[in-house]
Amino acid sequence: MLHGGDIYRNKVNIDFSVNINPLGMPDAVRKALLGAVENCEQYPDIRGERLTESLAERMGVHKEHILLGNGASELFLAIVHTVNPGRIVIPVPSFYGYERAVMSFDGEVLFYEMKEEKGYTLDEGIMEYLTEETDLLFLANPNNPVGNLIDSVLLAQIAEECKKKHILIVLDECFLGFSGKEEQHTYKNKLTTYPNVIVVSAFTKIYAIPGVRLGYLFCGDKELRERIEKHLPEWNLSVFAQAAGIAACLEKDYVEESIQVVEAERKYLKEQLEQLGIKVYPSEADYLLIKTDLQLYDELLKKEILIRDCSNFRGLKRGYYRIAVKKHWENVVLIEAIREILERTSIFQRL
Amino acid sequence: MLHGGDIYRNKVNIDFSVNINPLGMPDAVRKALLGAVENCEQYPDIRGERLTESLAERMGVHKEHILLGNGASELFLAIVHTVNPGRIVIPVPSFYGYERAVMSFDGEVLFYEMKEEKGYTLDEGIMEYLTEETDLLFLANPNNPVGNLIDSVLLAQIAEECKKKHILIVLDECFLGFSGKEEQHTYKNKLTTYPNVIVVSAFTKIYAIPGVRLGYLFCGDKELRERIEKHLPEWNLSVFAQAAGIAACLEKDYVEESIQVVEAERKYLKEQLEQLGIKVYPSEADYLLIKTDLQLYDELLKKEILIRDCSNFRGLKRGYYRIAVKKHWENVVLIEAIREILERTSIFQRL
Repeated sequence: MLHGGDIYRNKVNIDFSVNINPLGMPDAVRKALLGAVENCEQYPDIRGERLTESLAERMGVHKEHILLGNGASELFLAIVHTVNPGRIVIPVPSFYGYERAVMSFDGEVLFYEMKEEKGYTLDEGIMEYLTEETDLLFLANPNNPVGNLIDSVLLAQIAEECKKKHILIVLDECFLGFSGKEEQHTYKNKLTTYPNVIVVSAFTKIYAIPGVRLGYLFCGDKELRERIEKHLPEWNLSVFAQAAGIAACLEKDYVEESIQVVEAERKYLKEQLEQLGIKVYPSEADYLLIKTDLQLYDELLKKEILIRDCSNFRGLKRGYYRIAVKKHWENVVLIEAIREILERTSIFQRL
Repeated sequence: MLHGGDIYRNKVNIDFSVNINPLGMPDAVRKALLGAVENCEQYPDIRGERLTESLAERMGVHKEHILLGNGASELFLAIVHTVNPGRIVIPVPSFYGYERAVMSFDGEVLFYEMKEEKGYTLDEGIMEYLTEETDLLFLANPNNPVGNLIDSVLLAQIAEECKKKHILIVLDECFLGFSGKEEQHTYKNKLTTYPNVIVVSAFTKIYAIPGVRLGYLFCGDKELRERIEKHLPEWNLSVFAQAAGIAACLEKDYVEESIQVVEAERKYLKEQLEQLGIKVYPSEADYLLIKTDLQLYDELLKKEILIRDCSNFRGLKRGYYRIAVKKHWENVVLIEAIREILERTSIFQRL
């Protein structure tokens, strides 16, 4: 599997492999989804007007800069279909979805390998990849599976360089909402300065509704936005997606609470894991990348706990795992399970 | 508007502009959708395994020939993205979605105009368009907005000729389920004979769930099917689509009942309309194309009844309207409304 969350082919009790909000979906969203069932006999609004307006107001973005998608994954693919890029740059390790979105194209994909010794942070080495031949650059802020934010000064340099060289940046901010630093780091307010930056995000993670499929992009280049729209199917947003999105846009307090819970639990997990001798990478997201010699994926799956084995992430190797930050009791169960695995392993080693 | 169903920007009491099953969604589907709300905190099955198996069994098609989509519209677009056709043939009048799917491509689109004097039936004239330069042919069986089936002998000739000339046929059978003649006319059983025919259909109309978004295609060419899959985004089917689809596949009695209701009501509408002096085209679907000099769209909208004005269908002109076959009481309301409009108009003419 190239993604987490494969609860359909594994017996799973607690799923730490997907990074959704540990608070679960807001009650208002649940209510909106239940109510939407009766609207299924009608076509969804082909223009998604009410949701676009709600999102514009919630995010402080002009509605003419917004495009809605059946999950961020649909938007990544539509952007690639629109640009038909000759050369694509993807720093790795990162989300497999970018590579998936370009796999059916003839364009050349260059992977910029971030370095282990730098904790897989994006560094100035990326600048060399931003040549005249490059058409498209994928960036995740924060990145996934590491969870670290891109240095703001470096990101500004990249954006400038790409603007100069007509390189389109797909800036994935799907997890930025968890950082508590969204306003300082987002590019949603810089769309007119950087018409070459498309911000992509989703309701999936922050509102805990991956099953619904709802993503969006912000693009300051009106003509480009319209071209992308033509590469999206009609009625791509179900009545569920539209109803859930409209309800979610009102949930400001829930997002604030989520940020606090994630911060506290991330700190708890990090401290506990480090006490167990496991390396934890810095993260501002709702997940942690860890490194250990334990056969953690298999051992935890025996206990019906699913984590993300990151050995198949391009740019990573065996021994890396990603763990979602979940509810406190779940995190306690995970730590206890790992402690038990560790103890058993060390007993074996002593035998 | 290029589609019916714009209840979001019109005050509508009864919507005759979209062609969904007049029986409404089956109770088992409603129940499945309500139950799916609690699964929204999980990613949908990225492979849609259970639904694919249910559909394979229901339709008697090998599961390796199936591809699921976020509505048929997503599949039309993915096929075009995959084939990147140089020349596309679309007989008109027909569903706007085909033209929409190719609008962002450089390929040349040839429209074969079906003739008014032949009741807009597909005829042998289409054969001239099936040249070596043609890559893709869209066909709807039954067609929309007319509702007539393609002559079986002609369709077999077209399929043979296209096979010989490597022309891919997208055969839209979205409304075939209403005809009561599905088994005689479908190409789902000819996938290996005609690997150049992709059958596209949807749950939308026959199970009355356009709001959910769920379509599928059957393709006997395994390699082509895989290429199309790469042009679809990951997780394109929501938990709602998968749950509704699995439940719908068990609703055989409901489909049988639907066919009977639609047949009876179509007959009723046709007779009543003809008595009112309105021309009605032959149809085997759950809608009727009619022709009249009345300003029927505007006049009915004043009564909060929405029908489909077909004057903007390529290959049609002013005076054509499409009316869905709905529940008996709704059809009665429509006929009475038209009768009233007619009477008022004739009084005006006499004044």
